[in-house]
Amino acid sequence: MQATQKTRVLTGITTTGTPHLGNYVGAIKPAIEASQDPNVQSFYFLADYHALIKCQDPERVQASRLEIAATWLALGLDTDNAIFYRQSDLIEVQELAWFLSCVCAKGLMNRAHAYKAAVAENEEAGNQDPDRGITMGLFGYPVLMAADILMFNAHKVPVGRDQIQHIEMARDMAGRFNHLFKGEYFTLPEAVVDQKVEVLKGLDGRKMSKSYNNTIPLFTPEKKLLKLVRKIKTNSLEPGEPKDPDGCTLFQIYSAFASDQDVAAMRQQYADGIGWGDAKNQLFDYLNTHLEAPRERYNALMEDPGYIESVLQKGAERAREQAAASMEKLRAAVGLGRFV
Amino acid sequence: MQATQKTRVLTGITTTGTPHLGNYVGAIKPAIEASQDPNVQSFYFLADYHALIKCQDPERVQASRLEIAATWLALGLDTDNAIFYRQSDLIEVQELAWFLSCVCAKGLMNRAHAYKAAVAENEEAGNQDPDRGITMGLFGYPVLMAADILMFNAHKVPVGRDQIQHIEMARDMAGRFNHLFKGEYFTLPEAVVDQKVEVLKGLDGRKMSKSYNNTIPLFTPEKKLLKLVRKIKTNSLEPGEPKDPDGCTLFQIYSAFASDQDVAAMRQQYADGIGWGDAKNQLFDYLNTHLEAPRERYNALMEDPGYIESVLQKGAERAREQAAASMEKLRAAVGLGRFV
Repeated sequence: MQATQKTRVLTGITTTGTPHLGNYVGAIKPAIEASQDPNVQSFYFLADYHALIKCQDPERVQASRLEIAATWLALGLDTDNAIFYRQSDLIEVQELAWFLSCVCAKGLMNRAHAYKAAVAENEEAGNQDPDRGITMGLFGYPVLMAADILMFNAHKVPVGRDQIQHIEMARDMAGRFNHLFKGEYFTLPEAVVDQKVEVLKGLDGRKMSKSYNNTIPLFTPEKKLLKLVRKIKTNSLEPGEPKDPDGCTLFQIYSAFASDQDVAAMRQQYADGIGWGDAKNQLFDYLNTHLEAPRERYNALMEDPGYIESVLQKGAERAREQAAASMEKLRAAVGLGRFV
Repeated sequence: MQATQKTRVLTGITTTGTPHLGNYVGAIKPAIEASQDPNVQSFYFLADYHALIKCQDPERVQASRLEIAATWLALGLDTDNAIFYRQSDLIEVQELAWFLSCVCAKGLMNRAHAYKAAVAENEEAGNQDPDRGITMGLFGYPVLMAADILMFNAHKVPVGRDQIQHIEMARDMAGRFNHLFKGEYFTLPEAVVDQKVEVLKGLDGRKMSKSYNNTIPLFTPEKKLLKLVRKIKTNSLEPGEPKDPDGCTLFQIYSAFASDQDVAAMRQQYADGIGWGDAKNQLFDYLNTHLEAPRERYNALMEDPGYIESVLQKGAERAREQAAASMEKLRAAVGLGRFV
């Protein structure tokens, strides 16, 4: 089967944070599994151009890119099958974003959720300028996102509910471009919303998220992992008292990693009044056992940035091969082809 | 003297029309003269990315690029001295535009003249949506323009009065980037407004402009040139009646090309009551003599797009050599450098 006949699925990975257990359960694990489908041509990219919108700390951006690449590789992403690249190695997306800008109504961006939320925040804070603190990057990034997707004529884009609008916008731009330049240049992408994406709870019981500062980094060293697990918030029930596993952060994290059988056994232990210290130790043991091997691979990869760079360069070459062919057609379509 | 120590002057040439006498007198001639200054490193570029904002006719964009390149070469632009390139051959400007987008306040674009004029037009027309028909390209192009300028750290940018704002915006983005990323990455460019830019009149006596459809193409064939000169609007004074040269389109165009001595002589002929037919013939002769040699070169160049392409490729290589060095620094500055 030719790569071009396969279903093309594209996933961007934001590069401002350090991967944590929540990222792993909610996004990384399912994505790596999906990438093994032989009927699918997966594209995974480190969305580092997008990172610049919210992060003006170059060291953070640089570190995050390396950590994320090392994480995905440590967890077994098959980079011979999937095309794994760094967005900023494919400068062509910026050119495509410009082409799309010239057919994209500004009104479309006025209605983007992220922009509207920022305006609402300004209005609530009583700022006279509703656009205060909003950059052109934040305002226009759905155009760049459309370029990411349309560059490879991705059929499907797995997204969270809050991202559906971006795919609709990409469809809008694709359709408008096809119409204006009289050709089927772009495939209209479809959003795929995973209804049962698991949202892991963090140390304080809220959603595990960098912005709440309540995460457990995926590949934190063993000692630190134990320390963090011990910090997970529980109620004040004593050992011996029966406990409710549902709604309990410890139990939720355990369930995300353990087999059905082990989960059932743990549920029984809750009913039998397991002590929180014991539950935490068991969770730690389970996590540590599960993460030990990939953590070792991760640490080795982090020591070898040259290798990661070479893997990303290989991905960039594969991505560029496809992008270059598309861009040549698109340049000619808009009147920017070479003279001979 | 190193190129980098010279004053760098950058000029973009919009590529949606066919060069006419007005372009020649107002922009091309002074630019070509300025490019011969040995203390100046001139950059001239065909602003074809910008062309996409207002022109969705690929054949027009393609033809205009070729005609404009042939025109500048036919008129003797020294492409060994000046760096003459096509914007779309320097895809790096799109990447830089993204970097600048991420530091550029949206509010700055809200206040851009071209955008405000488009909104005002919608409001006057009673459109409910003030952004109707406005694309993201139109809204955001001052960012791309800033990238054009800042890519080469141009010191001076010759502009018309209506463009001063764009240079101020480029300065704003440059300063903000330097501040945020703690370095002198960009030189703040200066607008150079030529106070005495000559605005040539067109066939109907209004400013010669593509949008008024009143132009005399610079290298139109001899017969067509005669026909167009004969169409220039004059008043109904008879031969023998004294005529006022000031405010007369024929005289103005003649003055733009003729020597001071010949202009004085023509002024005398007006006082002596020259007939309009005679005046038109003399103008045609003067233009035709002046334009004959470059027109021949132009026609030969238009027959040889491969040569033009090679000249532009040479320019693109020289431009890229400088751009690549800058972009490497800038990528590292924002955190998008390579891992090794």
